[in-house]
Amino acid sequence: MATRVVMPQDGQDLETGVVAVYLYSGDGRTDIHGAARALADMQSTGTWVALEDETPAIRERHAGRVLDIRALSADEMETSPGPDRRAWLVTVAYPAHNIGNQLPLLLATVYGECASLGTVRLVDLHLPASFVRAFGGPTFGIEGLRRLVGAPARPLLLAIMKPALGLTPSQSAARFYQAALGGADAVKDDELLVSHPWSSFADRAREHGHAARRAFEETGHRTLYFVNITDRPDRLVANAYRAMEAGASGLLVDHVTVGVSAVSMLADDPAITVPILGHLAFAGAVAGGPQSGVSSHLVLGTLPRLAGADASIYPCPYGSLRSTRAEHLRAARAMTDPLFGIRPNLPVPGGGVHAGLVPVLLRDLGIDHAVAAGGAIFGHPGGVIAGARAIRQAIDAATEGRPLAEAAAEHAELAAALERWPEVSPAPSR
Amino acid sequence: MATRVVMPQDGQDLETGVVAVYLYSGDGRTDIHGAARALADMQSTGTWVALEDETPAIRERHAGRVLDIRALSADEMETSPGPDRRAWLVTVAYPAHNIGNQLPLLLATVYGECASLGTVRLVDLHLPASFVRAFGGPTFGIEGLRRLVGAPARPLLLAIMKPALGLTPSQSAARFYQAALGGADAVKDDELLVSHPWSSFADRAREHGHAARRAFEETGHRTLYFVNITDRPDRLVANAYRAMEAGASGLLVDHVTVGVSAVSMLADDPAITVPILGHLAFAGAVAGGPQSGVSSHLVLGTLPRLAGADASIYPCPYGSLRSTRAEHLRAARAMTDPLFGIRPNLPVPGGGVHAGLVPVLLRDLGIDHAVAAGGAIFGHPGGVIAGARAIRQAIDAATEGRPLAEAAAEHAELAAALERWPEVSPAPSR
Repeated sequence: MATRVVMPQDGQDLETGVVAVYLYSGDGRTDIHGAARALADMQSTGTWVALEDETPAIRERHAGRVLDIRALSADEMETSPGPDRRAWLVTVAYPAHNIGNQLPLLLATVYGECASLGTVRLVDLHLPASFVRAFGGPTFGIEGLRRLVGAPARPLLLAIMKPALGLTPSQSAARFYQAALGGADAVKDDELLVSHPWSSFADRAREHGHAARRAFEETGHRTLYFVNITDRPDRLVANAYRAMEAGASGLLVDHVTVGVSAVSMLADDPAITVPILGHLAFAGAVAGGPQSGVSSHLVLGTLPRLAGADASIYPCPYGSLRSTRAEHLRAARAMTDPLFGIRPNLPVPGGGVHAGLVPVLLRDLGIDHAVAAGGAIFGHPGGVIAGARAIRQAIDAATEGRPLAEAAAEHAELAAALERWPEVSPAPSR
Repeated sequence: MATRVVMPQDGQDLETGVVAVYLYSGDGRTDIHGAARALADMQSTGTWVALEDETPAIRERHAGRVLDIRALSADEMETSPGPDRRAWLVTVAYPAHNIGNQLPLLLATVYGECASLGTVRLVDLHLPASFVRAFGGPTFGIEGLRRLVGAPARPLLLAIMKPALGLTPSQSAARFYQAALGGADAVKDDELLVSHPWSSFADRAREHGHAARRAFEETGHRTLYFVNITDRPDRLVANAYRAMEAGASGLLVDHVTVGVSAVSMLADDPAITVPILGHLAFAGAVAGGPQSGVSSHLVLGTLPRLAGADASIYPCPYGSLRSTRAEHLRAARAMTDPLFGIRPNLPVPGGGVHAGLVPVLLRDLGIDHAVAAGGAIFGHPGGVIAGARAIRQAIDAATEGRPLAEAAAEHAELAAALERWPEVSPAPSR
């Protein structure tokens, strides 16, 4: 059982502060009270020596405050505790005026140097309205994306173009066309594909734009194309304009590698009139260590949502990437929980997703998510059209509450998909 | 002893590839050959299923190649190996044309999703000339900074303004003036200070600029002021212009929180005529886990140097931050080793640095570094002028090869500093 060892709640109005929760790992010799105080100091007014100039008035106005320290029990520790290992949740409040209205300074404040103090992971953030309201958030969000593709009440289908590299724009446009005929609501580039000798993003936007129009004329269903415009930040806006002019109906940004605040400048630009999809590339460098870095739901949920990504890809716990069900649910909640008027953005659990995972994703998330499939569409034994159809068939059946096996009896595409990649059920327990 | 278990060197011209070295942690059941192959595939052409369209021609042109797998011996493993724990160094080459000429895509390629495969840390990168030459690197670099402050042949002294938060621009300018009189070559803002109700960066640039001119008139020695302009990337260039107009002689950027490629857009802008100092804030989120993320010398050395930071702050292993001597030496080498014509940038080991550390830093790095001191200057018992003087006295003595104790006999400021913070010697062994 967890033991609440101290709770110096000091009456501070939380509405005026950014509250950060840290997982602090140590051992039996750790002075957790001193360590928590040192962390709050280092991330606000303090340094390694006492300074006359760090006056009581300055400390009162600017110092981080330790709100709570809670010891974790052995069974609450995610990694095996080992001999004499201990861990605590340390909650610190930083005055909102320390941070202003920008994401880089938020990150510097809540995790700037504290990893140099000890083994510290930022596991949660509570942002006050005064901070959140400086951000526009998603322009489209879940409802806007649903309107664009005319799908008001089911999970969306996002096709991830495969193979990642090496297709010319006309080759990938031909596959786009097939995915669109099969019912994909959107197709995205690979995170590794931007502009290369064999394929520039502008050429892809033009070719895929043609393909999208042809498919729409045949089916009456719109399929968005999220073209990867990732680049140095001063080139991003120009890339976005060029991509839209050429025919892109969405923008993909590797926000962890570019810096998440770059998404804000795209989302807040009134001339950018298409939705933004955030990709998880490099997030594992920040979120991948169990005792260090920053939790995945902050890196891939809260931050891109604040910055204005309309949808955000994160690792699906049931597929090819390493993640847990708890992380998945936390990420989706970070994207969809009320946040002072900021629109929810669309959770997109990705990596090894196929038709057989549709029911468990629907159970976990309800209809507000996208089924993001690459290999399962572009590697379907019946071809790309069949690959997209199979997942749309699974989505339609699951949304109506029908078993996949029943739908598979009516649809050869779904039957073939489930034969290769069987339905996953029941879900892993965590 | 390490065992070289396989080396499928395939004759590929390394000049055409980006070579990444990973630390892969596993146990006795790990199929390291399969894991390395999966990593190289995931970071290039592959997905979780075989695809007809991933043709031999596409694999030949775009797939990552496993060049080497080397098992680490128990004594080479940084963390305690534990029962049946194993670790390997896995070397993978990616074709340079996969990556183009941008840092975000480099990061996505060398560490985009591989943390979802297993416990993987990127520990080194070898970049080909074709990639490096797309970057301008530092405009000033070590030699340019030396010219600006007129200090051709000794370590520079960088004062870190303390307390970090709460001083008005005129209060901090008064301290700047004192540090300049004491002989500081540069003064930097705290990484948490940008524009706040009590201090905007433009006001600081103006006030500190005045102070710098006054001090120069008195002493004839120039002291640079690195003002923190960290912000959303589309505001950075405007911030830089405004700061220079107001009187800043340097720019501080928290490059890990903004995104390192934003530094490129500043460094490559011919209208920005002052040096750029990169700060380590948030680097611990990427580099802090021993088995995950990306090594510190890449995050704080190679990447900001390529992007054009003229100096880069990283954790000093002898002070208040957690680091090792090996990491410190690797970081400094990443900044100063030959790199296809890119200028070296100035290593700035920071955190708890004082006069008593000057000899060990000089022994480690030679004269090409800055001694970055905050508490030791602004918390010196004799005041700020004495604080700066003490470290300059230590720098001058150590550069001349004289013992600090000898210099302290002549200089009251240094004697007082060493009494409070004794000389550190000998150095820790790693």
